Amino acid sequence: MLFLLPELPSPRVDALLAQARREGLIAHAARAQGGRWRLSLLGERSACAAFARTLAAEPLPCAEEDEFLPLASRALDPSDRAVDFDGVSIGDGAFAVVAGPCAIEGEEQLLAAARAVREAGAAALRGGAFKPRTSPYSFPGLGRAGLELLARARAATGLPTVTEVVDPADVDAVAQHASVLQVGARNMQNYRLLEAVGRAARPVLLKRGLGARLDELLHAAERVLAAGNPNVLLCERGVRSFETATRCTLDLGGVAWLKRRSRLPVLVDPSHAAGDRALVPPLALAAAACGADGLLVEVHPAPERARCDGEQSLACEDFARLMERLRAVLAALGRTLASAPPLPAAARSRV
Amino acid sequence: MLFLLPELPSPRVDALLAQARREGLIAHAARAQGGRWRLSLLGERSACAAFARTLAAEPLPCAEEDEFLPLASRALDPSDRAVDFDGVSIGDGAFAVVAGPCAIEGEEQLLAAARAVREAGAAALRGGAFKPRTSPYSFPGLGRAGLELLARARAATGLPTVTEVVDPADVDAVAQHASVLQVGARNMQNYRLLEAVGRAARPVLLKRGLGARLDELLHAAERVLAAGNPNVLLCERGVRSFETATRCTLDLGGVAWLKRRSRLPVLVDPSHAAGDRALVPPLALAAAACGADGLLVEVHPAPERARCDGEQSLACEDFARLMERLRAVLAALGRTLASAPPLPAAARSRV
Amino acid sequence: MLFLLPELPSPRVDALLAQARREGLIAHAARAQGGRWRLSLLGERSACAAFARTLAAEPLPCAEEDEFLPLASRALDPSDRAVDFDGVSIGDGAFAVVAGPCAIEGEEQLLAAARAVREAGAAALRGGAFKPRTSPYSFPGLGRAGLELLARARAATGLPTVTEVVDPADVDAVAQHASVLQVGARNMQNYRLLEAVGRAARPVLLKRGLGARLDELLHAAERVLAAGNPNVLLCERGVRSFETATRCTLDLGGVAWLKRRSRLPVLVDPSHAAGDRALVPPLALAAAACGADGLLVEVHPAPERARCDGEQSLACEDFARLMERLRAVLAALGRTLASAPPLPAAARSRV
Amino acid sequence: MLFLLPELPSPRVDALLAQARREGLIAHAARAQGGRWRLSLLGERSACAAFARTLAAEPLPCAEEDEFLPLASRALDPSDRAVDFDGVSIGDGAFAVVAGPCAIEGEEQLLAAARAVREAGAAALRGGAFKPRTSPYSFPGLGRAGLELLARARAATGLPTVTEVVDPADVDAVAQHASVLQVGARNMQNYRLLEAVGRAARPVLLKRGLGARLDELLHAAERVLAAGNPNVLLCERGVRSFETATRCTLDLGGVAWLKRRSRLPVLVDPSHAAGDRALVPPLALAAAACGADGLLVEVHPAPERARCDGEQSLACEDFARLMERLRAVLAALGRTLASAPPLPAAARSRV
Repeated sequence: MLFLLPELPSPRVDALLAQARREGLIAHAARAQGGRWRLSLLGERSACAAFARTLAAEPLPCAEEDEFLPLASRALDPSDRAVDFDGVSIGDGAFAVVAGPCAIEGEEQLLAAARAVREAGAAALRGGAFKPRTSPYSFPGLGRAGLELLARARAATGLPTVTEVVDPADVDAVAQHASVLQVGARNMQNYRLLEAVGRAARPVLLKRGLGARLDELLHAAERVLAAGNPNVLLCERGVRSFETATRCTLDLGGVAWLKRRSRLPVLVDPSHAAGDRALVPPLALAAAACGADGLLVEVHPAPERARCDGEQSLACEDFARLMERLRAVLAALGRTLASAPPLPAAARSRV
Repeated sequence: MLFLLPELPSPRVDALLAQARREGLIAHAARAQGGRWRLSLLGERSACAAFARTLAAEPLPCAEEDEFLPLASRALDPSDRAVDFDGVSIGDGAFAVVAGPCAIEGEEQLLAAARAVREAGAAALRGGAFKPRTSPYSFPGLGRAGLELLARARAATGLPTVTEVVDPADVDAVAQHASVLQVGARNMQNYRLLEAVGRAARPVLLKRGLGARLDELLHAAERVLAAGNPNVLLCERGVRSFETATRCTLDLGGVAWLKRRSRLPVLVDPSHAAGDRALVPPLALAAAACGADGLLVEVHPAPERARCDGEQSLACEDFARLMERLRAVLAALGRTLASAPPLPAAARSRV
Repeated sequence: MLFLLPELPSPRVDALLAQARREGLIAHAARAQGGRWRLSLLGERSACAAFARTLAAEPLPCAEEDEFLPLASRALDPSDRAVDFDGVSIGDGAFAVVAGPCAIEGEEQLLAAARAVREAGAAALRGGAFKPRTSPYSFPGLGRAGLELLARARAATGLPTVTEVVDPADVDAVAQHASVLQVGARNMQNYRLLEAVGRAARPVLLKRGLGARLDELLHAAERVLAAGNPNVLLCERGVRSFETATRCTLDLGGVAWLKRRSRLPVLVDPSHAAGDRALVPPLALAAAACGADGLLVEVHPAPERARCDGEQSLACEDFARLMERLRAVLAALGRTLASAPPLPAAARSRV
Repeated sequence: MLFLLPELPSPRVDALLAQARREGLIAHAARAQGGRWRLSLLGERSACAAFARTLAAEPLPCAEEDEFLPLASRALDPSDRAVDFDGVSIGDGAFAVVAGPCAIEGEEQLLAAARAVREAGAAALRGGAFKPRTSPYSFPGLGRAGLELLARARAATGLPTVTEVVDPADVDAVAQHASVLQVGARNMQNYRLLEAVGRAARPVLLKRGLGARLDELLHAAERVLAAGNPNVLLCERGVRSFETATRCTLDLGGVAWLKRRSRLPVLVDPSHAAGDRALVPPLALAAAACGADGLLVEVHPAPERARCDGEQSLACEDFARLMERLRAVLAALGRTLASAPPLPAAARSRV
């Protein structure tokens, strides 16, 4: 059953009802307040989903903003959706740790980080080539050169990679070099970017905006899904609150809420939330305990020399210790760490 | 005098100092914490500004995020900056009211609104052609067709126009049809869009994000300024807080703070902040009393039939009443309403 | 008409209905969700109010928390309620300015402040004898000695006084020495204190808590009213938000909302909201423009030597300048400043 | 070493320095900004602490609000402080679960809950006799009758009890009937109540206010400690944020921060934070994983009939399942559940 509430001329509603019925659904429409329509559909899940896609394809005027999430919610399909990429699966029950430096600073730094996080049990590598910084005069990342380094790190370690994309025009280039396209918190409601990654062939990791409600995160995810990309990973990374002791306020209650409401995997980024590496391990363990599907965590071979966010990056050995404790907590809950793909042959010989 | 704090190899710092001195500045650099440098510059304002532009042009690694606002702040140039467009000036002391419908729905609606707000004393017309909506299934606006209607409304009434742009690829088209390019709250940190409007020949109205601190708004403005566009209008439109009685929490203390810290004109949007038309007039008057440079206010000929945000739109006659009270409050403070450009000849004969 | 939603056994509901009907009301009850009851009452206003007081007197299990405000809201009696004390009236249309030092530090300081604010047009004097400070080691105020100074300042200047009470056991002593009992933001939900001031013969000035929703402020006011004290003044003084540029975020939209929803006068404290004296005048003017009934503003004869909150206190001459501008803005809106009572004879001869 | 920053006349500072030196400390004072003094003390921990108590005893004008936490912080004594009561210890490494109904509704309900939570492994029983409710017309709890039931439940099950006190005048009565005095979120800055429980012989469980910063929680704890009661338990129970999907936003990053900064045990209340029982188990597990010292969790024999907060109360069997998972997670981290005292003889024979 599906409720949907657009504002439409009556003949168009009749046409939609007819179409739904042709597709084997029991369909009913009633006027809701504000001149909108409430459509109830009953039928096979796949037929409902197909019809919802039809509706999504045409620009419906004024669908109800806070209810209609046919693809992101569990309303039409209550099953969990796993997202697979380059030999890793997130959302299938295992707990996937994506780790690496905030910014890609050079080949040596990136490879050192990649080898260390792989060694410690990470399933994928993160690293920023395009860094959206608050000040226009801050280090903006290495850009396309960074993407090349990322691809080389993947070849060397076998780890799939996650990196941010900030411009619709860069989506193809990023998709060529990385396994997962990250949309950052600042761009969570950059709809043209969401639509662009929605047309890409790579999974999308969508971070919650610092001032975004959970339903807005789901609507942003819905926008990617509605554009045709079924592989969306949500990421809670802390929100703005009045508290200033920590950089942001990590909303693990929101993670538990998202897991109930949405089919999509939910990752947690304790590094940006805490802003202080001492708080990262407890929050990482808490994320695992509260049912998240994995972590996005900053690891740097030399945090004190990092070009951005050093104070919140774990050193490699601290990360390794955290992974040991994560394994234990996950085991206690009947879960395991998601494994990385096999080492490439070249790397194996080298190691 | 200018303080600036990048992290750089020493020879580069020496080169910068040399360059500054060649440009007639007294320049000094000292190591600050975290390996950064603090540059002090002393000299003629225009030379300082030129040098800051130079620095802005090249990607400096890790400039201090919360301090360095050479163009948006009053540090280099304490004078107010007025922004002029199509016969209207904002920031020169007069109080400019930009009014019109949330979304452009059709020619009749737009023209009715435009004539009514002009009649009541508005200086410019607002109206959305590209509407970023939370749900991907909501009415997205009329798009380019809406731009054409906007241009026609300007021709008919003489009112300069403000409209939102959501995609770097649309900047030229919007700039052709409208007087001012609005960047909405959701896109306040969409840096590629900021850079694109920063290269446009039209002024930019930059709305504060719902979860954005005031210094982040200034850094976003700095990004537009650093891209070469000196004409930026800031707009406070309410932020997220725990309060749910109103749609957002209008931060007029923030407006007063911005006026002290920044050279740029500051507008206030009471409509989005309140979410309820009954609260719009008191907040509009409060904005005028606290020193804002103008308003962005939603007016609709038939709010109960509006396709979006009807509940927060003023009817034309309520707007006219508000303008009367605004005139009185402004006069009490020694200010006036900014006037609209003269009526076009055609319109004059028609009226 | 009144809606009220308690959870009760059926016979009790029947008894209540019978009682209401005996009092001449048309009464109806229906089951609401969660086993609660929705009572609808129709009849003369005074009879409805009397019945609501009856209900309030007995402990009703689980009245609906966010709806039932028979005394604070306009539901039963839509008229504005003016609060009078010692020759001053707040809420009758005139705009009342209550000014004075944050803490009473000594006789000289208090009298200098009192004379200056009276001279400039304030209607009443504020000054703290019991100061609730975040740290247990901070200056806690002069206590009862401060109360005596306050009484002396009233005798000398004729200004009624407002001072904070923090302990139910102090209510009588404070009521003997001051005209209005202030309940501070920290104690907004200190229900025993609210009940104690609710039994006092002095009006109560109730400040909004930093994390309190507007409906919670109204429920706190309702508690004072239900205890028998009909004279409650609300005060908005800024709330906690993620913004750190200002000490708090002044919620003037909340003031406009309160004026519509509640009968009670609403004051605004721009000093605590801003935390910076430069922002106090614009916020004070904004409060007047948005329909508040008055101000609570900190004035100190020597702000730089104040023992607390000096940075947000206006110097006497800045306050006088602000009052000039307030007069002008109020006149533009058809309002006036509330006047202070006549100067005492002694003071007149002295001046 | 201790830093302390009061504003004092020089002779007084000299006297303090002399006194500190007489007590064997190396003491130094320097003028800090705002006319304050910064005292540095070096010496044996116990002598430093004694001197801090001396300072705390006399009303020092304007001690620095955000720095001076001699008793609550780890500055003077970095060791963890365990709080013991009636056979249970919190803060000694074991994880203590305090469970029971929100409000005491009757003997049967309370005993059923007490037996069930004991059976499942709780170390102590919670239950409210005095309920501070937002509306003055809501169920206020059974009051003293509830205290008697609580004492009876302790006698029957051997579980120590935690209950809220809302009035300084009730402290003795509550201390006679209960093991731990809870100060609720609304009263976190009710200083007279803090001082009253600070003079009581029972430990104090202090809940964070919904709008309170972490340092304010520590200052509130310091007030209890400075009044002479060394046994304070902190409790994070969610704060206000803009998110409305959950009742509050549980700040587990804040818990990790508190554990580093303060010596005091930190409990977590997932029930009030979530407002929805489905979210309680994941948040409870997360609290254990992030290093909290225990939980405060609402359990009701029949949540759907609870007189308050039923929707966030766990049924007894859900609580038992949660405890199984908690045991596993704690074991994975090398910790155990704190055990309850032995069953009383009478209860043993009965079971």
